[in-house]
Amino acid sequence: MIRLGIMGYGNLGRGVEVAVRDAVDMELVAVFTRRDPSSVQILTAGVPVVNVSEVADWKDKIDVMILCGGSATDLPEMTPEYAQMFNVVDSFDTHARIPEHFANVDAAAKSADKIAVISCGWDPGMFSIMRTYANAILPDGKDYTFWGKGVSQGHSDAIRRIDGVKNAKQYTVPVEASLEAVRNGENPTFTTRQMHTRECFVVLEDGADAARVEKEIKEMPNYFADYDTTVNFISEEEFNANHQGLAHGGYVFRSGKTGADKEHNHIIEYKLTLDSNPEFTTSVLVCVARAAYRMKAEGMTGCKTILDIPPAYFSDKSGEELRAHLL
Amino acid sequence: MIRLGIMGYGNLGRGVEVAVRDAVDMELVAVFTRRDPSSVQILTAGVPVVNVSEVADWKDKIDVMILCGGSATDLPEMTPEYAQMFNVVDSFDTHARIPEHFANVDAAAKSADKIAVISCGWDPGMFSIMRTYANAILPDGKDYTFWGKGVSQGHSDAIRRIDGVKNAKQYTVPVEASLEAVRNGENPTFTTRQMHTRECFVVLEDGADAARVEKEIKEMPNYFADYDTTVNFISEEEFNANHQGLAHGGYVFRSGKTGADKEHNHIIEYKLTLDSNPEFTTSVLVCVARAAYRMKAEGMTGCKTILDIPPAYFSDKSGEELRAHLL
Repeated sequence: MIRLGIMGYGNLGRGVEVAVRDAVDMELVAVFTRRDPSSVQILTAGVPVVNVSEVADWKDKIDVMILCGGSATDLPEMTPEYAQMFNVVDSFDTHARIPEHFANVDAAAKSADKIAVISCGWDPGMFSIMRTYANAILPDGKDYTFWGKGVSQGHSDAIRRIDGVKNAKQYTVPVEASLEAVRNGENPTFTTRQMHTRECFVVLEDGADAARVEKEIKEMPNYFADYDTTVNFISEEEFNANHQGLAHGGYVFRSGKTGADKEHNHIIEYKLTLDSNPEFTTSVLVCVARAAYRMKAEGMTGCKTILDIPPAYFSDKSGEELRAHLL
Repeated sequence: MIRLGIMGYGNLGRGVEVAVRDAVDMELVAVFTRRDPSSVQILTAGVPVVNVSEVADWKDKIDVMILCGGSATDLPEMTPEYAQMFNVVDSFDTHARIPEHFANVDAAAKSADKIAVISCGWDPGMFSIMRTYANAILPDGKDYTFWGKGVSQGHSDAIRRIDGVKNAKQYTVPVEASLEAVRNGENPTFTTRQMHTRECFVVLEDGADAARVEKEIKEMPNYFADYDTTVNFISEEEFNANHQGLAHGGYVFRSGKTGADKEHNHIIEYKLTLDSNPEFTTSVLVCVARAAYRMKAEGMTGCKTILDIPPAYFSDKSGEELRAHLL
């Protein structure tokens, strides 16, 4: 059995805990928290909740630690720190900072003879895998990534920072006609506006000026100005009843040409429709933990990404089983 | 530059030749044929066409040999034979015989300190990769593979063996309503008939009895009896004008549940829409040849499958480039 630890018990930590139940070759041995452990109630009977200050005592009791922190401030610190004690897996998703995060984690993991796999989930994660395969197979082609329909946390936060806004959710929605144009092999070039629309659901503070808030949202540079944005003002009751979901998803396409005269077009489409964004992410993290354990057992150390992992290492099945049933 | 050889110059051999043009890190050094080389005209100036009897002279001049034979009779012989001289890649696609083929090729490649990657293309191949990832990520779920719309060579051959048939093409077509049911998360259980229909285009010999031929097709066990089958009798002119295409494609789905009470459903869909079945297959083979070269350079030998290859090894880009741009 691969012995897993969970560092951090929010949406991701809970998702890992639940995903491990379906993994026949893994067991959860402890959940670590910055909070008072007696205040944290987990789902799994018999698994201790431990304050993070005691984590070093668990160095020899955990094969892989899954780091369930946020990308903005937690993981840039946590992953290099814990890679000095454990084999670790994280879901760091700030694309632009991946090279820097990789370098920090690689140095830490190598110095401790550990393996660390960063940026696992679906984007970065499964979408990255799809882009990599598809770019290699169809070098003469175009990539398209669409997200949604799903909540963008960053855009929701941006709305909440506007004066007079009590709460807000922003859904990113792919433009259906643009998906169809890609599927039809038209190899279109899109403006930002043509790929996604933004739907906002906003609860105002008492007495706030709706027209001003709507204008501020729609004109916000980077976040909304380049998009067709719809703003819906709703009551707090409606917000709480209808906008708590964690569904998300998206599409990775590559459309590319082959042939002596480039006369043949091919379209690769990968689509995710997810009822729970964090639970799908953690389902990937658990598979990557399995892979990290195997890669470490083979002698690998340092920082890796999901692109460095053979698909077979995601699976609990043997090579024989995979060849007989899934190949 | 990775030096490639092509063994066999039919649809697959030509596809490899064309795909190599887009690979900046590879060069084609020779094409091998069982025919008289002077009778074989290839597309690439300056590349020799060599009779297969002289292949041993090329042992030190080729890094990876791509074996472009058929699965029924060629590859079961060719792959073990040439794995004793070269690192090889094949597209062996008889699913039921993969374990046997693997064992034969593994013994041959290991004895010669070579690497061999078998069963690469799209099914087996990219579809296998998708099934493996998706089964690992969503262990509590169901798989669905749909093929088409595209020509089934085996079913076309079966029709041509009927007395009175001059020529025939059979298209496998997924049932649209069933695709939608899977996409809607209904997790349906399908009969064979509910997943695909079979459309046949048949040219009769002069004086053949159309009603008898249609009955024989529709009642043929395994091939057609379990499907809704449409038989269209057409002229040889129409056949030659409209039924020479090599388009194909298909879908791999997994629909699976997560959550403390399995309350969340997730749907992974991978869809290929291919203008040329052989050219997409050979585009994969060329990427796998790149991967085989790297894996051999790392000291791996024996038989591998596409499930054993990290996605990054498909690409000509460095780890740094992949992390910066595709992760």
